Parts: sequence; structure tokens; C-alpha cells
Amino acid sequence: MEAQQTKSVAVTILHNATIVTMDPDARVFRNGGVVIERDAIVAVGQSSDILHQFSSLAHQIFDLNGQIVLPGLINTHVHTSQQLGRGIADDVDLMTWLHHRIWPYESNMSEEDSYISTLLCGIELIHSGVTCFAEAGGQHASGMARAVELLGLRACLAESIMDAGDGLPASWAGRSTDDCIQSQKELYKKHHNTGDGRIRVWLGIRQIMNATDGLLLATRDTAKELKTGIHMHVAEIAYENQFVTETRKVDHGTVMHLEKIQFLQDNLLAAHTVWVNPAEIDCLSRGGVKVSHCPAAAMRMLGFAPIREMLDAGICVSLGTDGAPSNNRMSIVDEMYLASLINKGREVHTNGTTDPTALPAETVLKLVTINGAKSVLWDDEIGSLEVGKKADLVVINPSSWTMVPLHDSISSLVYCMRTENVVSVMCNGEWIMKDKKILNVDEEEVLSKAKHASAELLKRAGIKIPSRMNFL
Amino acid sequence: MEAQQTKSVAVTILHNATIVTMDPDARVFRNGGVVIERDAIVAVGQSSDILHQFSSLAHQIFDLNGQIVLPGLINTHVHTSQQLGRGIADDVDLMTWLHHRIWPYESNMSEEDSYISTLLCGIELIHSGVTCFAEAGGQHASGMARAVELLGLRACLAESIMDAGDGLPASWAGRSTDDCIQSQKELYKKHHNTGDGRIRVWLGIRQIMNATDGLLLATRDTAKELKTGIHMHVAEIAYENQFVTETRKVDHGTVMHLEKIQFLQDNLLAAHTVWVNPAEIDCLSRGGVKVSHCPAAAMRMLGFAPIREMLDAGICVSLGTDGAPSNNRMSIVDEMYLASLINKGREVHTNGTTDPTALPAETVLKLVTINGAKSVLWDDEIGSLEVGKKADLVVINPSSWTMVPLHDSISSLVYCMRTENVVSVMCNGEWIMKDKKILNVDEEEVLSKAKHASAELLKRAGIKIPSRMNFL
Repeated sequence: MEAQQTKSVAVTILHNATIVTMDPDARVFRNGGVVIERDAIVAVGQSSDILHQFSSLAHQIFDLNGQIVLPGLINTHVHTSQQLGRGIADDVDLMTWLHHRIWPYESNMSEEDSYISTLLCGIELIHSGVTCFAEAGGQHASGMARAVELLGLRACLAESIMDAGDGLPASWAGRSTDDCIQSQKELYKKHHNTGDGRIRVWLGIRQIMNATDGLLLATRDTAKELKTGIHMHVAEIAYENQFVTETRKVDHGTVMHLEKIQFLQDNLLAAHTVWVNPAEIDCLSRGGVKVSHCPAAAMRMLGFAPIREMLDAGICVSLGTDGAPSNNRMSIVDEMYLASLINKGREVHTNGTTDPTALPAETVLKLVTINGAKSVLWDDEIGSLEVGKKADLVVINPSSWTMVPLHDSISSLVYCMRTENVVSVMCNGEWIMKDKKILNVDEEEVLSKAKHASAELLKRAGIKIPSRMNFL
Repeated sequence: MEAQQTKSVAVTILHNATIVTMDPDARVFRNGGVVIERDAIVAVGQSSDILHQFSSLAHQIFDLNGQIVLPGLINTHVHTSQQLGRGIADDVDLMTWLHHRIWPYESNMSEEDSYISTLLCGIELIHSGVTCFAEAGGQHASGMARAVELLGLRACLAESIMDAGDGLPASWAGRSTDDCIQSQKELYKKHHNTGDGRIRVWLGIRQIMNATDGLLLATRDTAKELKTGIHMHVAEIAYENQFVTETRKVDHGTVMHLEKIQFLQDNLLAAHTVWVNPAEIDCLSRGGVKVSHCPAAAMRMLGFAPIREMLDAGICVSLGTDGAPSNNRMSIVDEMYLASLINKGREVHTNGTTDPTALPAETVLKLVTINGAKSVLWDDEIGSLEVGKKADLVVINPSSWTMVPLHDSISSLVYCMRTENVVSVMCNGEWIMKDKKILNVDEEEVLSKAKHASAELLKRAGIKIPSRMNFL
């Protein structure tokens, strides 16, 4: 057992559980326990040792009856302000998706919409075992921050930032580079390190086709000055590379151009990163760039990213759900299952057979825990269950029809677990879901407000969704 | 409203629901109702009409409060006797999977194991909205039949049949063609059309590498004689085609050989069918062969089947989960989501971009309902909510955090719905799950028996699963 000296008698003990620590030694305690003091883990070890040493100091002792405890899951690419737009862009081509659904939706959002959308998305994230997420760049970060603070989650927030590009909605077009940077500095000042330290503010770049080199360089330098991260969609579609090759005069695409302007640094979280060649993988690796792999959205809209090759090159890959209109499930639990399946299947195109041994379960678990933490530049405090780290964790019930029999508990967490198995979630030492009940907001009230706000928003944005089938 | 003359006063009414009929006109009643008399649907229409005409005859009236009713989902490829083996073969290559895990597991099963395994699998199927399944060919069909009868499900059962092949377990090797046919005829005699007509017996062929031409031809002729179907794994891996090309002297693979011996008929349910060329797709189409597409298992072990091309060629495609050691989720709800995603993504390899319009939601819903019914040769009685058909249906709650907001209710059934949204299931006019409670068996007792039986079976079969991570 590792333990820290505790300063109070108010510790919380979880015991009689399978503790999957995700620590550097990949330790799993078959019958283990965790001790929490305020927001931090002060001991991890065998149940008997934990009870022996800490029972007298505990104000709460939870017997988990053989359930499984994992570090809080980390979703490294999610558009929380798109949650009200779930279902507005299913089965449509990319141009319809962007110009006739997503841009009208996003450009008509109020801060209140963003607040409600993030509340709704946050509820889904918590039910899926997520304690920390990286916002992909959305609308009205102040609305998001208010929701995150209330829900009790941990997040790296960013806004959707663009200073160029054709066909933008009128309210977005002609925004200056300077305005993009200044407004983000203000957000940083207002929200960074708020919510008991759970909220951080990052810089956003929507994507290269909507960013001048001036914006890219100012973002890089501002991130260094503020000691924060940059979240950017990178190499999403083949056309993007073609566009960059033509307009920026490089020999392949986005990653080559970002390399040329020295943008590839270890505080860059690159989302999707589907269309990259071996030389570009090498650039990403040398730069220490982090990659967020979003399996569902990639299959639907983008293509199959070379994840095995990136992992082999030492790149820190993590998992994201992307936004609701691109997925539409916002479940990192399902993304684990998908990541395993599509990266096994993808091998068929190079080798003539799938590789059922590719991305094994223990690797997939790393993507959503310690790699997620590294990707959001927070692995000194989260991503594993270790003494001194923040108490972010998930309790999973493996005894239901979805996971029985449990011959291989580690692989079952990836291949069998569904959101139904996620029972309780703790973030920063506080339960934010207990026995499937979200604790800090009234779930029914949020659902009701979200239905109303999303209907109004679609009306305002003039978005009409064609009916399928023959409704009577 | 369509209605039949009823013969009794004991009808059941479901009303105030979105009724997705999946009938030939693709009708959806926004506020509809269904009337059930004994095992059959006697009326479908607007709620107000239904209540007006049938209230006085009803002994039960269920107000569904805006929930969605779909025809019972049909899983056309599932190994129910493999359920106890979930997790025994994750992340291993195909030869380890077959020779060191699945064959030892299956060849050591007792009839009681098969019974418990099918009970466990059936619980998962029902929770996933399934009312009918096609057994892919497993062990001890009598055990399966007992479980299906008890659970209240509808099924086409088949045994795993092989009369050839290298490396088979001793207890299986050397089984004669005649014995294979005779034993299936006995099963047919014993179980066909039992369980109030819910159970049918089909003929099985495991796969071509384990079948002589004599067995194939005798199976074809016996199926015709018994007026039943044949369930066979077809063109699963590239090596299978190579094997057939070499041993049977045809120019491509399994489908070409089956065409040559006139095996491709409209009572054949071909599972997976991944490695087929355009000429073979044409053969399958002309023969009226049905194809069961199993997205998860295909991505993991086999490859990407040309589903869009098969649908374009008029082939009846349906969906299956395959068996627990190949998937491991046995959720047809998740397979809908996967089918949509991987068939959108698959286009990237031919076109350079994914096609987000491929396999739209309404097509995917057909695969699990009316196409499923045609695939199991039962579309005269199931697969849609129509007057005169059996009352097999699912009630879905779309008002939870998984599906709100509901801008496109049809696409949300495919892209957002999870098993959590499946509330109640009726098969053959009887509720088999109501408000998430399985009615005909004690779920906890089955889970407990399954844990015990599976541990004993693994011991008997000598299967050892290497430990992952560092267990303490």
C-alpha cells in the first residue's frame, strides 16, 4: 500500500473493489481500496491494509462489493455546445452538414443556449464515466464554464476561432486575428483555474482552412505566454490537405505546413488527424503533439486514422466523442469499443486480413485514462489512481447481463461494458453521480429546458430537417 | 386505421405512442395505437380511432406516453451456446481463437451448459429489443429449445454441423455425412414448430472448410424436403476462398463453388459473406440468398463486407451480433449504429472520402425488422406492425439523456438509441420484458448459474486465459 500522511480525520474510504490503477506499473488490486482526503487520493492498496490503517480516520466508508474502480475517463474532443443539435445532420453530405446545418446552428446560439447545451452534454458525459473533457472549440465559453462549474466536472474549454474562410455566416465573417486573440485572453483571465481549479481555458483553432498563418502564429505564442494548450482540428479530410498544398505551397498537407511554421509543439491537441503520411506522423511525434482519435465521427465523416502507426511512433493518442451532430452518441464507453474494432478492421486494407490483436484492451484503457490526461496537459494530477493525484474515479458494476461471465475483467471493460454499467462518478473528491443519479443538477429539468431551447434555436436558425418515412 | 374483426373481448391496446410500422408504405403514426388479440395484431392506426373502436373490448389499455413502438428486432446470426464463453478469446489471432479457445469450449459443452448459455444470451437479446433470432449453429439444440421456450422468444435453431476438416477435437472428428443429416432430422421432428409455434428448426453448415460436397447437397435436399432454411457461414476470410479455389477447382471462392453445385437458393441464410466479388454478388442475388451482416465481428475478425453493393443488387441483408467471443456485446441496437458507421466509412477505400449518406437510418431499420423477417423466412408473420401479423414489438423510451433532443426520431433510433432505451418487449402477444424486468426467468438466478457453469466448463476444457496488467 502507498499512503500519504493525512491531515484530518475526514477521509473517505472505498474498499472491496477491483482497483484498476492505470499507474506506470499497470497495477490492479483484486480486492483493493482507495482513501480520499478532500480532493485528493491519499492511499491506494489492498482492502485489508486500507481498512486497518484508515478506518478510524474515516467519516465515510463505502463497501463496493466487488465492483470495479477506474480512473475518471477523459474525453479529449467534444463539442459541448453542439449537444442541442443532435440529430440535425444525420445522413447528409459534408457540405450540407457544414453550411446548412452546423454553421446556421452555431452562429445563432446564445450564451444561455451554450449553457444548457453543455449541461445536457455534461449529463451524458458523466453517465458515461467521464470526469474530464477537452472542449473542441465551441460557442460562448462563458456559458460552458458556468455549466461545468455547476456539474462538478473538470474541463479544458476553448472557443471556435476562425479569422478566414469562404462562406462563413455573416455574424462570423471578417473577424480580425487580433480580435480572435484578445477575446481568448479575456476568457482566460475570467475563467482559467476557476471552479476549485477544475476549469482551464485553452486556445482554439477551428481548422486550417479558417485560419491565417498570422492567427496560427499568434495562437502558438499566446499559448506559450499563458502556459496553456491549443485545440485544433487537423487533417480531417483529403480535401483539406489538397487545399493546404495549393494555398500554402507545401508538399503534402496540414501537418507539413504546421511543421514548417513551427506550430507542432507539445501543447497542441490535434483532433482526428486522419489524413497524415509517415513523414507527417514523424513530425507529430518529434513535436510531442497529442492526437485525439474520434472513431465514430471518423467512420462517419472522415476516414480511418493510422492510429496503430501513431502509437508505434510514440505519439500520445487519446479518445474523443466529437460533437452530437457527428456521432450521435456522446459515450466514451462506446468509443473504446469502436476504437478497438475499427483499428483491428482497418488492417485488412494493408494486410488482407484484420488484425484481432491490434489495439488490445489494455492499450484502449490507456487512451481514455493516462493518455487522456497527458493530452490535456494534466497528467500530474489526473489519469491514474495514485497517491497525490486528484480523486477522479468511476465505479463500474460488472455483475449485470451486459458483462457476465467475466473471464477477462480488463478486456470486458472495453468490449462488454456499456454506459449501463457506470454506477457512480467522483470528480475532484466529490461524487457527481451516485447510484446513477446526477447530483448537482436536476436531470429532468435540464432535459426539459434543452428540448425547448433546441426547438427555438432551430427555428431561429431556419434549419428544417426533412422527414423520413411516411408520417401520419 | 386497418382493423380485423375480433372474436373476443380480451384485446390489449397500446396507444399514445409513435408507431413505426415498417410496413410496405413505411407508415409512422405520430400518435398511434396497436390492438392485440391473443398472439396477433388486429388493428393499427391513430390513437383516437383505436380507442374509439376498441376500448370497450379491451381488458388491458396501456398509455405509452409518447414512447416509440417498433416491430420486434430480429438478430439473424447469433451463437447462443457461446454466451458462456464471452471474454475467452479477446485480442487473439484467428487460429488461437479457433483451436485453443472456441473448439475446446464448444466440444466440452453439456446440454445443460447450452441451456444456461441460451438463457443468458436470451436475457441480453431481450434487453436489446430482440424478439426473434436465428441461431448460427451451436451445441445441443435441445438445450437451446428449452431456453427459448421458457424465455418466450421466437427462434430458428440450428446445430453446428461438420463432416470434414483438419484439427477438429476428437469428439467431433469422423462424424459421417449421414449422421449429420439424420441427427438434424430428429431435432426437426422433436422441436420444429414447438413453443406455440415460436420455435423452428433449421439445418446448419458450419462453413465450407468443414463440409464435404455430399453434406452440402444432402443439406440442400433435406431443407427442401422439410421446407426449412439453411444457416451457413460464407466467405468469412480471404483464406477460405483460397482454400476453396485450390480444393474445389473454381475461379474465385466459396460463393462460386456453391453456385456451381446449385446450393444458392432462397432458403439459404449466408452469414458474414465478406469476401465476395461482383460476380458472386450477382450469384447471391439471382439465387435469392439472404445475407446476415455482423458489423462488430466483421471488423474484429473478418473484414468489410460490400453491403451497399449487395443492397444495390437487391439482396436481402439483415443484421446479426455473432457470438459473444467474437463481439462481445450481444446488442442488435449497437449493431445498427455500427452498420451505419462502418458502411459510411468503408467508402473511403474506394472513393477517397467516406459517404455519410450511405446506409441511411431508414435502411438500417429495415435490416433489423422486415429484412430480418425475410431472412428467417418468416415475413408472412413478423417484421412489421401490420394487421394479421404476430404481435412482436418493442417499446422504446426516447425521453432520456441518451436521445434528447429528438429532432429526427427515425435517425435517433439508429444513431442515439442504446439498450438503456428499450423498456418493454412483447413476443407472440405476451410481454417477455416489462419496464426493464425480464418476466419469464429469474435474471439474477440465471446470472449466478451462468457464472458457475462457465467457470466449470473452462476448467473441463482446459482453457486458460492469460492475465493482462499486473494483478496484485
